[in-house]
Amino acid sequence: MKEKYMKIAYKEAQKAYKCGDVPVGAVIVKNDKIIAKSYNKKQKKHNATRHAEIEVIEKACKKLKTWYLDDCEIYITMEPCLMCCGAILQSRIKKIFYGVKNEKFGCVQSIEKIFDNDKFNNHVEITGDICSREIAKMLKDFFKQMRNDK
Amino acid sequence: MKEKYMKIAYKEAQKAYKCGDVPVGAVIVKNDKIIAKSYNKKQKKHNATRHAEIEVIEKACKKLKTWYLDDCEIYITMEPCLMCCGAILQSRIKKIFYGVKNEKFGCVQSIEKIFDNDKFNNHVEITGDICSREIAKMLKDFFKQMRNDK
Repeated sequence: MKEKYMKIAYKEAQKAYKCGDVPVGAVIVKNDKIIAKSYNKKQKKHNATRHAEIEVIEKACKKLKTWYLDDCEIYITMEPCLMCCGAILQSRIKKIFYGVKNEKFGCVQSIEKIFDNDKFNNHVEITGDICSREIAKMLKDFFKQMRNDK
Repeated sequence: MKEKYMKIAYKEAQKAYKCGDVPVGAVIVKNDKIIAKSYNKKQKKHNATRHAEIEVIEKACKKLKTWYLDDCEIYITMEPCLMCCGAILQSRIKKIFYGVKNEKFGCVQSIEKIFDNDKFNNHVEITGDICSREIAKMLKDFFKQMRNDK
């Protein structure tokens, strides 16, 4: 099941790719139903906060008419950064599924382990390394193309 | 000068207060000119990510047509949470001025010291305790009223 939703997040990431944004996609699921999907729009919207996670949490909140996403799961193609880990905590999402590690900015397992930090008083379940081969390839292609375009 | 901008952030916070949102306001300044001001809209927008900082960064990015706020300063009535510290890092803001500490969720000096963490590769200048008496009173009144309303 987790591969099914990650593939949808992957398709979202491809939309970011086409817009020249780092290809990251995200999906929010509740009771096995997709509530929202979106992708990184940082360049497209000229806005540093418009990562896929912030976008998809906003859409899910709008749809469910609540800021409280306690019974939702989030699927993200890449390990979230500090801001997005914070947004997940704020929205009370309790399950994170992600594709590849983000060695430079990831705050789940890479540069920080935010969800292991008791001070944040959370119990978030984390599963990484889902569809990671395809996602890693897409990111590699994107950065190669960026370098070539320069 | 910092008191001048903090008072404007305070007025923004009062708008949140009127909407039943925790009164937090924020202002972004560039070359001594106000670029954007906003306030916490979490309850108003039913969205966990709509803290004053996310709102004001979004507005400033729109106005300046860039995600890169490297030469801007942010004034916030309260010490920012994890998500908002991440958003400040993402937008490359280099100066933070804030009013009161947030002992439960603040990540500048209270539960974490994000900007002291070398892993985030930033050089952010921080000044706290600005207009803190007035701001603390407003927050105290707000939470008292919340308890009474219940």
